[in-house]
Amino acid sequence: MKIREITVTPVAFRDPPLLNAAGVHEPWALRTIVEIHTDEGLTGLGETYGDLAHLNKVREAASAITGLDIYAQNQIYHHISAVTGDAISDLHGLTGAATKEKSIDRVYSPFEVACLDIQGKAIGRPVCDLLGGPVRDSVPYSAYLFYKWPAHPGTPADRFGQALTPEEIVTQAHLLINEYGFQSIKLKGGVFPPDQEIDAILALRAAFPTHPLRLDPNALWSIETSIRVAHALDRTLEYLEDPTSGIPGMAAVAAKAPMPLATNMCVVTYDHLPPAIAQSAIGVLLSDHHYWGGLTRSVQLARLCETFGIALSMHSNSHLGISLAAMTHLAAAVPNVTTACDTHTPWQDGQDVIAPGALRFTDGSVPVPTTPGLGIELDRDALAVMHEQYVNCGLTARDDTGYIRRFDPTFPTTRPRW
Amino acid sequence: MKIREITVTPVAFRDPPLLNAAGVHEPWALRTIVEIHTDEGLTGLGETYGDLAHLNKVREAASAITGLDIYAQNQIYHHISAVTGDAISDLHGLTGAATKEKSIDRVYSPFEVACLDIQGKAIGRPVCDLLGGPVRDSVPYSAYLFYKWPAHPGTPADRFGQALTPEEIVTQAHLLINEYGFQSIKLKGGVFPPDQEIDAILALRAAFPTHPLRLDPNALWSIETSIRVAHALDRTLEYLEDPTSGIPGMAAVAAKAPMPLATNMCVVTYDHLPPAIAQSAIGVLLSDHHYWGGLTRSVQLARLCETFGIALSMHSNSHLGISLAAMTHLAAAVPNVTTACDTHTPWQDGQDVIAPGALRFTDGSVPVPTTPGLGIELDRDALAVMHEQYVNCGLTARDDTGYIRRFDPTFPTTRPRW
Repeated sequence: MKIREITVTPVAFRDPPLLNAAGVHEPWALRTIVEIHTDEGLTGLGETYGDLAHLNKVREAASAITGLDIYAQNQIYHHISAVTGDAISDLHGLTGAATKEKSIDRVYSPFEVACLDIQGKAIGRPVCDLLGGPVRDSVPYSAYLFYKWPAHPGTPADRFGQALTPEEIVTQAHLLINEYGFQSIKLKGGVFPPDQEIDAILALRAAFPTHPLRLDPNALWSIETSIRVAHALDRTLEYLEDPTSGIPGMAAVAAKAPMPLATNMCVVTYDHLPPAIAQSAIGVLLSDHHYWGGLTRSVQLARLCETFGIALSMHSNSHLGISLAAMTHLAAAVPNVTTACDTHTPWQDGQDVIAPGALRFTDGSVPVPTTPGLGIELDRDALAVMHEQYVNCGLTARDDTGYIRRFDPTFPTTRPRW
Repeated sequence: MKIREITVTPVAFRDPPLLNAAGVHEPWALRTIVEIHTDEGLTGLGETYGDLAHLNKVREAASAITGLDIYAQNQIYHHISAVTGDAISDLHGLTGAATKEKSIDRVYSPFEVACLDIQGKAIGRPVCDLLGGPVRDSVPYSAYLFYKWPAHPGTPADRFGQALTPEEIVTQAHLLINEYGFQSIKLKGGVFPPDQEIDAILALRAAFPTHPLRLDPNALWSIETSIRVAHALDRTLEYLEDPTSGIPGMAAVAAKAPMPLATNMCVVTYDHLPPAIAQSAIGVLLSDHHYWGGLTRSVQLARLCETFGIALSMHSNSHLGISLAAMTHLAAAVPNVTTACDTHTPWQDGQDVIAPGALRFTDGSVPVPTTPGLGIELDRDALAVMHEQYVNCGLTARDDTGYIRRFDPTFPTTRPRW
């Protein structure tokens, strides 16, 4: 079954002003939707980043693999490797160093997902069956809390409201948990001085005594600060995410922190695993099929993590339903994903390129689709609207720092900041 | 598609008196043939060890997984794990320590291969397509030379003749290379004092100036002897296999040996990888899907090896065509299997349970089958004959030491021997 044609469509959807170490989310989040059409009439879906440098590589890759067989994954990877060229940096800097290997894996990922979608449809099987079969019927996700402005400057307040104090963070948690039923909570930190973020975590603990809690300052702290916060949150955090930058720094913190350290920044490609393992830098890997080369390679990564006693969870950027479906099939088939995965789904606030109904949250978990492939269908009208939004919004790359500096020209990028 | 019934058939085939560190091959080699029959009428084949303790576990496993879906590999593994129980040792001791994990992987392997055979047949694809697609059209194997008695005691000389001197080893190499076209050579050592085996390798080098050469004494040497032999064969061996026992011992040799060390003894299960990697004990892993949990898990193992800069080749025990087909599909789909794999095929001397014609050697390589599944068919008459041989031969476990002691009661099992 050959790839007859690939459609690559950049889209934009409204994104609230979520604060993080790099600045604040712009009014539009960008994604790229990949549709692979085969010579036998089947179509498969993939979703990836929307930044222009990446989008261009995805388009080049689409040309390079047209005509190949949808089972020829080694060959597809090889062709994509040949056109990817140098490492592609992201402007926001929240997912670690750019390397050539990571760039290839990022470009390859949506095509691999789309091919699995097709393979599943061809045999009438959900994608998780192609990854070893489900070990769970539904995949738990966490309530992903953000410090947040009440609205994008110059616009009316959005329905999520302001979240700048511990009390407002707790209010946001209630909102998300009421709507989705999440049973774990993650706070994106690196926004305020660490003591304020400690207070927010303690307020969450008081409000949600049994929910596992996580804090992620995106490597904005020094080693000393990281160790201090880790001790202040002993017995409170399930794990501490990327408190400081780099494998040696994380290793120095890990040696003294009472809880495991998690990362989606210092280990973002296979090359990072040997030094991170040698230095005992991490206890939890936040995997992400968008940059670990798709679903099958993520299963391979999971096996490697199991071998070395590294726990697995899952990282998320702003995404749509194709990504959520892919993440759910993957987590369903990997025995050692044993903690709730991250998702930005609540911040989509109902916007999507897929037809409603295929994915839903029950008690914070997404039931694994049992229909063929990813179990989702493209909503072509929604896709057209979102593509129009992409064309009109004027954004071509995520730039949280550039955006925040429009309102706070002195916003610092020094690292560590605290 | 559900497993309706599984047929487990032990078989025996004639095996020449091949010498090794543990003794000598008995007149019959034992294997177990697994046939999975689905409720949709498809059948898949797997092949594994024939020792009775293992055969019994395979039979228990077959009962435990009947009724499961052929895509539910995680579930099948879980069920097999539950019935496997304690570690199963092998009497010959040539494939490293027995662990519970390794025993589960060994029992699981033939079922996984059979399920992939069925999946491939169901979609009209060769098994290598289910492993990422082929990166090569044919898989190179090595000429696997053995010191050898002219015949089993009390029987007429077989057609391979005696191989006890360097000259006779060279003669054996010519015989195998003339018949199969092998372009790499492996000598099973650990039979004679190391200097004699060095002489054999040097004789092979003189006779075959460009063939990569390997020597495998099955961990029979001390660290000091291993280092001495390694230096004596500097620039002569492609790699030195298992010169000494254990990960620390191998690490001590590796630190001083001029060539990479390979193993199928000190790293035989996932648990062994972290210490072997931490100690830089090995440069080449001789993988074997029969004890690394089948083909998909072997692909995962390959990714791990690639990550840590460990080269991959493939180990072999006495086997039949089902195993050769599985090994060929696996090696076809793994980019980093870049050296010739081991095979005992020449010692089968035409005996097989599969119908002739599906697998052939051209210039030492087996063209990867392109027909659905493993690309082979069971020869039921041959299977019946070989099962009859199993019943009549009286052997229930490979015991190279017990057999050699019938003729040489003082045969030593002290290790290191030299």
